[in-house]
Amino acid sequence: MNIALDMMGGDFAPNEAAKGVQLFLSQPKQNVQLILAGDEKKIEQLAKDHKINPENITIVHAEPVIEMHEHPTKALKEKQKSSMPIGFHLLASGKAGAFISAGNTGAMMVGSLFTIKANEGVLRPTIGAYLPKENGDLSLLADVGLNTDCKPENLNQFAVLGSLFAKYILNTPNPRVALVNLGEEEGKGNLLTQAAYALLKENKQINFVGNAEGRDLLRDKADVYICDGFTGNVILKFAESIYDIVQNRKIQDEHFNRFNFEICGGVPVLGVNKPIIIGHGISHAKAFDNMIRMAKKMYDEKLIDIMRNSFTA
Amino acid sequence: MNIALDMMGGDFAPNEAAKGVQLFLSQPKQNVQLILAGDEKKIEQLAKDHKINPENITIVHAEPVIEMHEHPTKALKEKQKSSMPIGFHLLASGKAGAFISAGNTGAMMVGSLFTIKANEGVLRPTIGAYLPKENGDLSLLADVGLNTDCKPENLNQFAVLGSLFAKYILNTPNPRVALVNLGEEEGKGNLLTQAAYALLKENKQINFVGNAEGRDLLRDKADVYICDGFTGNVILKFAESIYDIVQNRKIQDEHFNRFNFEICGGVPVLGVNKPIIIGHGISHAKAFDNMIRMAKKMYDEKLIDIMRNSFTA
Repeated sequence: MNIALDMMGGDFAPNEAAKGVQLFLSQPKQNVQLILAGDEKKIEQLAKDHKINPENITIVHAEPVIEMHEHPTKALKEKQKSSMPIGFHLLASGKAGAFISAGNTGAMMVGSLFTIKANEGVLRPTIGAYLPKENGDLSLLADVGLNTDCKPENLNQFAVLGSLFAKYILNTPNPRVALVNLGEEEGKGNLLTQAAYALLKENKQINFVGNAEGRDLLRDKADVYICDGFTGNVILKFAESIYDIVQNRKIQDEHFNRFNFEICGGVPVLGVNKPIIIGHGISHAKAFDNMIRMAKKMYDEKLIDIMRNSFTA
Repeated sequence: MNIALDMMGGDFAPNEAAKGVQLFLSQPKQNVQLILAGDEKKIEQLAKDHKINPENITIVHAEPVIEMHEHPTKALKEKQKSSMPIGFHLLASGKAGAFISAGNTGAMMVGSLFTIKANEGVLRPTIGAYLPKENGDLSLLADVGLNTDCKPENLNQFAVLGSLFAKYILNTPNPRVALVNLGEEEGKGNLLTQAAYALLKENKQINFVGNAEGRDLLRDKADVYICDGFTGNVILKFAESIYDIVQNRKIQDEHFNRFNFEICGGVPVLGVNKPIIIGHGISHAKAFDNMIRMAKKMYDEKLIDIMRNSFTA
């Protein structure tokens, strides 16, 4: 299979992306051809520096770069020849089976929605992120910012998409789904979660375990936590700040080290027609390696087909 | 002044409440008469055990107790002779100048709204909670669960109420107010926060400093963070769980120790006609002492009058 990688996205690109490629290819039997989009000369030099086997990579030249602060839609339109739109083009045309970028998150979302598009039957795709449990496992939180205002039916679909991702990619059999809410009992919540609860309860495609409060999110109450993108974004960034504080205060703790969101690489866009991974701006080599492996797994497991079937069958 | 205290509310009542009373009264020049609502015999015995000066307390007998799991409205209606409704009655009739309880939170909210009622001009009262900053200061987060669905105008009023509390009770001159949101820039947000931003920006009564993301909530970006009660409740309980994890993992750290929400005692109900403090269910003596002192300060500073004037002047 071919995986397209935006070499210019992220704060430490292209060097950390190149190191990530080297790290990935150094593992046996990957059987993946990486299509590297970015500044050709720089990438060629980095490939030499990091002793990347040229047979495993194809470089597609791209410039200029979409910067982190740029307006997503405008940047994608005006910088068609930069690495991100090129990556989306490789994916859309079938030349790549998955696409990864740690670049401008907003532009990645816009590209996912408008170049690759939602799966048939999916009202709104979603972006998930990981939350660490004290037992070492990860749970998935969705949505974390793609959908700021949601309808109950959106949350119900996020639950299905998140469950399938947890089952096939995070290897969680029969994943438990919980609704993020302000109380445990049925009937608690705002208008959205009250209505979503009723749908989730009746949804035969998921293993719904009820409401989860803020205090449950880092516990082993569920494997998939569902919420609107506003709430999820606030939770995710709050959790990230906890990791920053822990680092800043030089606290060494195995569990809090897992709050390092780079460990997991990037977050998947769920409910679109192709495997897409959005990396954190601060991604280093390990994150790129993880993202490539996750993209490969999404492809190998035929996750997109499974998701599509769950909404159209 | 007289302060009414629900002796039967909270997981460790009435013993910890009695120890809190003793702690408060042991400090010089408090000049407060405490009206203790609860089981007369038990309180008398505890007062003896803890050497509480009988001249400083008045016991008002109450039974039965409203349990933590009971339905708020139903419990208040059916158990009129329990300590919480008696406390509200003391407050409503003017026999007490403030009321404190660590009992059933939902019942405290219902009592605040329906027995004491909103200040003139206040559409929806709010409940605030504290977030610790790394510099040792506290910020106020409101709403944390009283108003699950909010209109932009509610958030605009929470901003005024929170500012006045921060100024007069937390001693923060010209408190900075931020809107909890999923991006920094104006224009970001869900429908609610986009509309609330426009109101906050024009509000001359507050020092609005813009949006705060999840990652800003524990930083020194603002002194008052405003959000709907659903979001605030999830944030608060998530932060509480961080403290639990830190304790559980035996991490000793000055900053994370401040995540112990008991340090601050209880949270104020803002925008109602009298000073009311709602304690955490797990309140110990120190929390009760802090709540009594906060109630006294709210009374001494005439905070309710100041709040009322800000909406009617």
